[in-house]
Amino acid sequence: MATAAIIGGGVIGGGWAARFLLMGWDVRVFDPDPEAERKIAEVLAGARASLPGLADVAMPQEGRLTFHPTIPEAVAGAEWIQESVPERLELKRKVYQTVQEHCAPDAVIGSSTSGFKPSELQGDAVRPGQIVVTHPFNPVYLLPLIELVTTEANPVELVDRAKAVLEGIGCYPLHLKKEIDAHIADRFLEAVWREALWLIKDGIATTEEIDNAIRYGFGLRWAQMGLFETYRIAGGEAGMRHFIEQFGPCLSWPWTKLMDVPDLDDALIDAVAGQSDAQSGAYSIRELERMRDTNLVSILRGLKAQNWGAGALLKAQDVRMSTLPERLEDVADLSQPILTVSQAVPLDWTDYNGHMNEARYLTAFGDATDRMMRLVGCDADYVASGVSFFTVETHIRHLDEAKAGARIRVESQCLEGQGKRMHLFHRMYGGERLLATGEHMLIHVSLETRSSAMPDDRVAVPMARLAETHAGLPRPEGAGKAVGVR
Amino acid sequence: MATAAIIGGGVIGGGWAARFLLMGWDVRVFDPDPEAERKIAEVLAGARASLPGLADVAMPQEGRLTFHPTIPEAVAGAEWIQESVPERLELKRKVYQTVQEHCAPDAVIGSSTSGFKPSELQGDAVRPGQIVVTHPFNPVYLLPLIELVTTEANPVELVDRAKAVLEGIGCYPLHLKKEIDAHIADRFLEAVWREALWLIKDGIATTEEIDNAIRYGFGLRWAQMGLFETYRIAGGEAGMRHFIEQFGPCLSWPWTKLMDVPDLDDALIDAVAGQSDAQSGAYSIRELERMRDTNLVSILRGLKAQNWGAGALLKAQDVRMSTLPERLEDVADLSQPILTVSQAVPLDWTDYNGHMNEARYLTAFGDATDRMMRLVGCDADYVASGVSFFTVETHIRHLDEAKAGARIRVESQCLEGQGKRMHLFHRMYGGERLLATGEHMLIHVSLETRSSAMPDDRVAVPMARLAETHAGLPRPEGAGKAVGVR
Repeated sequence: MATAAIIGGGVIGGGWAARFLLMGWDVRVFDPDPEAERKIAEVLAGARASLPGLADVAMPQEGRLTFHPTIPEAVAGAEWIQESVPERLELKRKVYQTVQEHCAPDAVIGSSTSGFKPSELQGDAVRPGQIVVTHPFNPVYLLPLIELVTTEANPVELVDRAKAVLEGIGCYPLHLKKEIDAHIADRFLEAVWREALWLIKDGIATTEEIDNAIRYGFGLRWAQMGLFETYRIAGGEAGMRHFIEQFGPCLSWPWTKLMDVPDLDDALIDAVAGQSDAQSGAYSIRELERMRDTNLVSILRGLKAQNWGAGALLKAQDVRMSTLPERLEDVADLSQPILTVSQAVPLDWTDYNGHMNEARYLTAFGDATDRMMRLVGCDADYVASGVSFFTVETHIRHLDEAKAGARIRVESQCLEGQGKRMHLFHRMYGGERLLATGEHMLIHVSLETRSSAMPDDRVAVPMARLAETHAGLPRPEGAGKAVGVR
Repeated sequence: MATAAIIGGGVIGGGWAARFLLMGWDVRVFDPDPEAERKIAEVLAGARASLPGLADVAMPQEGRLTFHPTIPEAVAGAEWIQESVPERLELKRKVYQTVQEHCAPDAVIGSSTSGFKPSELQGDAVRPGQIVVTHPFNPVYLLPLIELVTTEANPVELVDRAKAVLEGIGCYPLHLKKEIDAHIADRFLEAVWREALWLIKDGIATTEEIDNAIRYGFGLRWAQMGLFETYRIAGGEAGMRHFIEQFGPCLSWPWTKLMDVPDLDDALIDAVAGQSDAQSGAYSIRELERMRDTNLVSILRGLKAQNWGAGALLKAQDVRMSTLPERLEDVADLSQPILTVSQAVPLDWTDYNGHMNEARYLTAFGDATDRMMRLVGCDADYVASGVSFFTVETHIRHLDEAKAGARIRVESQCLEGQGKRMHLFHRMYGGERLLATGEHMLIHVSLETRSSAMPDDRVAVPMARLAETHAGLPRPEGAGKAVGVR
C-alpha cells in the first residue's frame, strides 16, 4: 500500500488527501490547525459522495487516514509528500528543510503553489531534485488538471515517477516546458480576475452579472474545448489562420484594461496556426462542430437535470413552452390515452448502435410516469409532504428505432388505480410508428418508512377518477406479457 | 407568425437564423455571399440536430427560411433585424441607414458586434433609438448568453420588448448598465487571448497545452459557476472577503503580462463582498460545494459518455482500473453468474425520491448487457463490421433502493443463447441486498438492414458455450414473470 504525506490540510491539502485516500493510498496528515481533522473530514465527505461515481468500475479499497503532530512523523515512509501551506516562500522553504531531514531521499515533494516557480522553491535545499510544483485545481478530488513544473535539477526518473503517480490517482499532469510565475492556468485566471475587478470598480457589472457572462456563454465552451480549438471552429472552413487574421486587429483595441500586447507578426501567426493544426488537424471543422455541439448538449442537459445555471434557464423555458397537462382538469379528453411526453431525441441519447439507447426509453417512460403521477395529484408539494409513488416493476418492448433529433411522443393509459397500486401502460410513437411500449407498476409509499402506504384523498380521488374513465379503453396489446412470450 | 431579418449570414448570422427558425419565427436572410445559402444550410443542420434535444417539450413548428437579394426586401415586415456584418463601424452604419429607410420604425435592430458600443453604432442614424447591441456567443443556437447593451436613446419599451423576444427564443439577455468597449465577456476573452499569445510567443506552452490547462481545470468550473461564486467557495467558511484578503497581495505580482491593476481598497473589497453576498448568500458554502460537485459530476459524466476532454481521461482510467472480464476466457468460474458491473452510484443518478432513478437501473443493466455482448465476441470491432445485438424486451423488478455513492454490482446469467436470440438475466446487489433484477431479450441484427440476422461463428460459438455452461444454473426467481404477477 502506497503512502502519501499531506503537509497543510486546508481546502487544497484536504482535496489531495481525499483523492489519494479514495484511490487506495494511505494518507498521513500534518496540519497544526486544531480544526484540521474536522475540515478534512468535511472535504472527504464531499469527495466520497462524488469521486467514486465518476468511475464505471469499482474503486480500490480506501486507504487509511492518520493525523500526526509533527512533520517528521507525517513524512515517515511516504513516497509522495504534498505541501499545501500558505503562499510564503520562506515558510515553504522551511517546510522542505524539515521534510528533507526525515523523508525518503527518493520521495517526490510536490508543492501546490499557485505562483512560485520550482527553482524558487528548490532554493538552497539539500536535495533540490526532489522538489517539484504539482499545482492542482479546486475541487482537487474532481478536477483532473495538475500543472507539473520542474527544473533541470529534477532527475528524469523522478519526473516520470511523479507523472505516473498523478495519472494513477486520476489526474492529468500537464508538464510545463519552462517555469514561469503562476504557471499557465493561473495566469489566465489572474488576467480575468483583474479585468473583473476593474468592471466592478468602474460600475460596469456586478459579481453576479460577471458570473452569468461566464457560465451562460464561453464557460460552457471551455468545459470541453479550450480557447484555441474553439476559435479554430469560429474561423469556419478556413480555420485558425483565418480567425487570427480576422480578429488580429482588435488585439490593439482597448478591449481590456490590460494593455501589454504581443506583436502579431508572421512568426507568431505561424506558431499558433501550426500548433493548432497539430492539435486539432485530425478533425475537419464540421466534425469539430458536431463534437462541440454534442458535448454542449450533454453539458447543458446535465445542468438541466440539476436545475442549475444554463440548465435552469432551459427548465424555465420548458415550463413556458409546455402545452402538456399538469392536472387532470387540463386533459382535453380523459376517455383516451393521455399525451404525457412530446420532445425530440437529444443528441446524447444515442449509442454505438446509432439509435436511442435502451435506457433512454425508460428515461422517457419515467418522464411519462412522472406526469401521470402529477395528474393524479402526486406533485412536488405532495412529495414534499412525505409521500410518493415508487416504480416496482417495468416491462419494455422495443419495437422500432429512434434517431437523434427525431420527435417522439408518449401516450399513457391507466390500467389500474386503486389502493396503493397504480398500473400504467405507455406507448411511445415516432410519427405513426409505434417505437416501444412500457408497462409499469407503481406502489404508493411513505418516504419516511420507505414502505408502502395508502394514499390520502389528494391522490386517491383523482387516481380513482382516472382509472375509472380509462377502464373503458381496450386492454393494450402487449400488456401483461412476460419477456420472450409471444 | 413573427418575422426576423438576418443581415449577414456567416457563422454568427447563420446561428441567429437557426435559433429564430427553430423557435418558430420566419426568417429572411440578406447576404451578398453566393455561398450564403449553403453555409446557412450547414449551420441549420447542426442546429436542428442539437437544439430541439435541449427541450423536454415539443418545439414550435419551424418557421420559413427565405433568401433575399437586397436589404430592403429582407427587412420588409420584420419585427427583429439582426446585423452580423464584419466589424467595421462605417460598414455597420451604412447598413443601418439602408435598413432604417425600409424597416418598420418600431422594429428592433440588434447588432452582433463584439466590440463597438451602441452609441457608436447609433451615430447619426435617423432613429438611433431602434439600434441596440445584442452580442451572442458561438454556437448561437446553443449558448443562451446575449449581451444586451443600450443607451439613453433607446426607449424603455423597446428595450423591454427586445428582452422578451430574446427570452422567447431561449436566450438569456444580460442587460449592461453602462456601455464599454467589448462589453463584458469579450473583455475576459481578450485578456485570456492576449495572455495566451504571450505564452506561445515566449515558448512556454503550445495551443494544445493551453487548451488542456483550460478544459481539464477551471473551464469545467466555469460551465456551472462563474469566477466569483467559485472563489466564494474557495474562500471556505469565511467566504468572499477572506478569499480577497488571502489572494489580494498577488494582484500586484507578475502573474500575467497584463499589468494594469486596480487598487484593492476597502471600497472595492466591500463592493465585491457585498455583491457576492447578494448573489450567493442564500446558500451556505457547504451547500454551494455540494451543488458544484454534483454539477461537475454531471458535466464530467456527460463528457465521458462522449469520450471527450476530461471525460476521455475518465474513460481511460476505467480501462486501467477495471478488473472485470472482457472475454469469456477471462471469466474465472464460468459455471456461476458473471460479475458484469461493479461501481458506485453517481451523484447525478438520483431523483426527487432521494434514490437511484428507475431509468438508471436500466443504464446499469444496459452496461451489464454490453459486457455480456463483449464476452460472447460482440465487441467494438464486431459492431464496426456491421452486426450487433439489439435489446427487444426488458423486464425490471425494483426490489430495494440505492443511494448516491452506494456500491452496486450486477451478476449476469445467460438463460438462452442460440440462433439470433440471447436471453439474459441480471441481478443487481448492494452488498448482500438484492436491489433489482433485469430480464432482457436480445436479437442479433444486421446494422445495414436493421433486421434480425444470424450471427457468424465469432459470436455463435462463444455464445453457445456460455449458454451451455449456464444451463446448469437454477432458473432465477422472477424470470419469465409479467408485471403485477406474483
